[in-house]
Amino acid sequence: MNKPLRIAIAGLGTVGAGVVKMVQTHGELLARRAGRPIEIVAVSARSRGKDRGVDLGAYAWEDDPVALARRGDVDLLIEVMGGEDGPAKACCEAALSAGKHVVTANKAMLALHGQAMAELAESAGAALRFEAAVAGGIPIVKALTEGLAGNGISRVMGVMNGTCNYILTKMEATGESYGEVLKEAQALGYAEADPTVDVGGIDAAHKLSLLTATAFGTRVAFDKVEIEGIERITLQDIKNANDMGFKIKLLGVAQQNGDGIEQRMQPCLVPTASPLGQLEGVSNMVVVDGDFIGQTVYQGPGAGEGPTASAILGDIMDIARGLIIPAFGQPATGLARPDASSNGSDAAYYLRFSLTDAPGTLARLASLLGAHKVSINRMHQYGHDGKTAPLVIVTHSTPRAALNAALAEICALEASLAEPVALRIETL
Amino acid sequence: MNKPLRIAIAGLGTVGAGVVKMVQTHGELLARRAGRPIEIVAVSARSRGKDRGVDLGAYAWEDDPVALARRGDVDLLIEVMGGEDGPAKACCEAALSAGKHVVTANKAMLALHGQAMAELAESAGAALRFEAAVAGGIPIVKALTEGLAGNGISRVMGVMNGTCNYILTKMEATGESYGEVLKEAQALGYAEADPTVDVGGIDAAHKLSLLTATAFGTRVAFDKVEIEGIERITLQDIKNANDMGFKIKLLGVAQQNGDGIEQRMQPCLVPTASPLGQLEGVSNMVVVDGDFIGQTVYQGPGAGEGPTASAILGDIMDIARGLIIPAFGQPATGLARPDASSNGSDAAYYLRFSLTDAPGTLARLASLLGAHKVSINRMHQYGHDGKTAPLVIVTHSTPRAALNAALAEICALEASLAEPVALRIETL
Repeated sequence: MNKPLRIAIAGLGTVGAGVVKMVQTHGELLARRAGRPIEIVAVSARSRGKDRGVDLGAYAWEDDPVALARRGDVDLLIEVMGGEDGPAKACCEAALSAGKHVVTANKAMLALHGQAMAELAESAGAALRFEAAVAGGIPIVKALTEGLAGNGISRVMGVMNGTCNYILTKMEATGESYGEVLKEAQALGYAEADPTVDVGGIDAAHKLSLLTATAFGTRVAFDKVEIEGIERITLQDIKNANDMGFKIKLLGVAQQNGDGIEQRMQPCLVPTASPLGQLEGVSNMVVVDGDFIGQTVYQGPGAGEGPTASAILGDIMDIARGLIIPAFGQPATGLARPDASSNGSDAAYYLRFSLTDAPGTLARLASLLGAHKVSINRMHQYGHDGKTAPLVIVTHSTPRAALNAALAEICALEASLAEPVALRIETL
Repeated sequence: MNKPLRIAIAGLGTVGAGVVKMVQTHGELLARRAGRPIEIVAVSARSRGKDRGVDLGAYAWEDDPVALARRGDVDLLIEVMGGEDGPAKACCEAALSAGKHVVTANKAMLALHGQAMAELAESAGAALRFEAAVAGGIPIVKALTEGLAGNGISRVMGVMNGTCNYILTKMEATGESYGEVLKEAQALGYAEADPTVDVGGIDAAHKLSLLTATAFGTRVAFDKVEIEGIERITLQDIKNANDMGFKIKLLGVAQQNGDGIEQRMQPCLVPTASPLGQLEGVSNMVVVDGDFIGQTVYQGPGAGEGPTASAILGDIMDIARGLIIPAFGQPATGLARPDASSNGSDAAYYLRFSLTDAPGTLARLASLLGAHKVSINRMHQYGHDGKTAPLVIVTHSTPRAALNAALAEICALEASLAEPVALRIETL
């Protein structure tokens, strides 16, 4: 048997404890598969005394994750503390600087610092891997960087936040409002007390920015992701979409757009009969279009102890087997930014307006859309509640810029009671 | 830039030509991703003069694939000739014996000789890879051997033959008979002139035997796959299944069964609302259950030039990047046979009987089932055509052995006009 791969774990929350369990449960299997033992040698966390349901007695303890990363008996650091800066970043940098491999689940950190860290890893000849940071247990980073490595990728898209998908599918199933379902999700532990990062689309956008870099060979550019959350989606929107054969999903899309890669994380309408339309609950799904392979679809649990630990173990096994490739599948120093001149390629849109029920309002709205060459496919006015007249319009395919200009003018009308909701209809 | 990986291609049919196109189209991208150029140096096929739509002028030509495999300027042989023995096997063995890596799409060859070839590869320190042999473009071998390598796998199952899925979904969509749709599939090139290997489940069983070895770390044991084709499925079966909330799929299943791994490739009923139930046309899908990750699903094109070439390129890229792992993810010499005492864990079954419309027949049938403790959940008699009375029964969960014993006795009844159809209802 070859030399063991000696690992250290920084962070012993759910995920860190999951990794310990997995290594303890499958030690023999892992060694057979990797051709060498996987050995945990040291761990670090905030509180040493806490019971985590795993026996840590055989491992050295470090209070300081940076000291953990620098230990001479460690080949690979697993960072599962979280936090985009601070100790997480410090211990990853310390490990990479010392030529040690890093496996992390930290999407926020990589969304902001991934490019610099990838360069650091390369210059040190170390691996930086992050399968667990995107779509939980689904081995999608591996599929993009390795399995599909012969393809030019034209689009990668998917549902990458289980909390949002749970809320949207639960609203539909129960007829409850966004607020009610969010409260339940918080009680079940699916959503944080401050849900902004999830429902605002930021967590999913972190993941999308990593997928974009991986799929297209570009620098991580979280700042270029157009982000919109699901907070304004109503039950009526979900029903309207349903009536037209669509589901509403918080959908991340990165696609070739002439001069660059557009990145969008926003609620979209997708066909009910499509795999994305069928996705229920907290599952994640990623759909990839490649020039030779065509379309492939990957579905699985997007979070949780087991799935996240599984993704981390996948990365560990690769490193144990000697696969050391650039973090984003290509040398980081050569990567360009994915700048696209716009984040909105042409699409049809679902629009919902809240208007005063005054004569002439509809005509004015229609003429403003027409003035910007936004052409109307279907229109539906429903449920007056005395004061407001909600109006739904589905457009033909239109440039986003034209739509935005029309919406700005409509929004400025006296008859407009709230900012219009505009949801892209995504063709699959 | 590092030394190029020099490849030779044995076989220039659709897939071989696809690999040439991919390398020619994406040469620069491949080099950037692999850290070294991928160079085709020589090719071999039956007829040198044939126009294959690709420029082969820059490559050496060999009439003999074994000579191709032995060339001193070749690091890796791509075998895409097909045929379970003969020149395909000879050239793969020649390459491996000479320490050269082999990438093959040849499921029939590996189903029969995979174990011996994996051992040969290991003793030579060469890689033997076969992503293209299972589920076309879907990187499922990679997912099992690498991405999910930290998990114990309890079940892997899926739809692995696009021809059969096309026929079954087309029958349902058009109301045409099995024979009519098969003829259309042959005209479209989806089915061979002799369709036995596809519709008889043999091609899919080849693939399943490779997935089993990969998922469970067992020897390839094609002879242990219980195989049943789709030839006896009628439109009425499809309709009956539909009425009960199921679809009929040619489903391959390999699962832990107490003392071993059971392997089945047979038409099954799966829930309409499940990913497998939703799968239409020639697509393939594989569903994997792991102990830590839970369930993941992989969907994509199961055949064709682009998808198959894509899978081959994925394997080439791994080898170019230095990933040399055992063919089935664990050292071949240590693998045990996946022998299970039975191929049928307990399940509910859909049964269709063709009986003479004589008094007492139904009572005799029911009592024979009862005598073997096969308990009836639902029963439906339909469409007398004067002479025969088709009868459909859905059982409660039952051991396959008990069911088989009952069916044998029922089959021996004078009133029985044809062998009963028994389709397992697969829980997902």
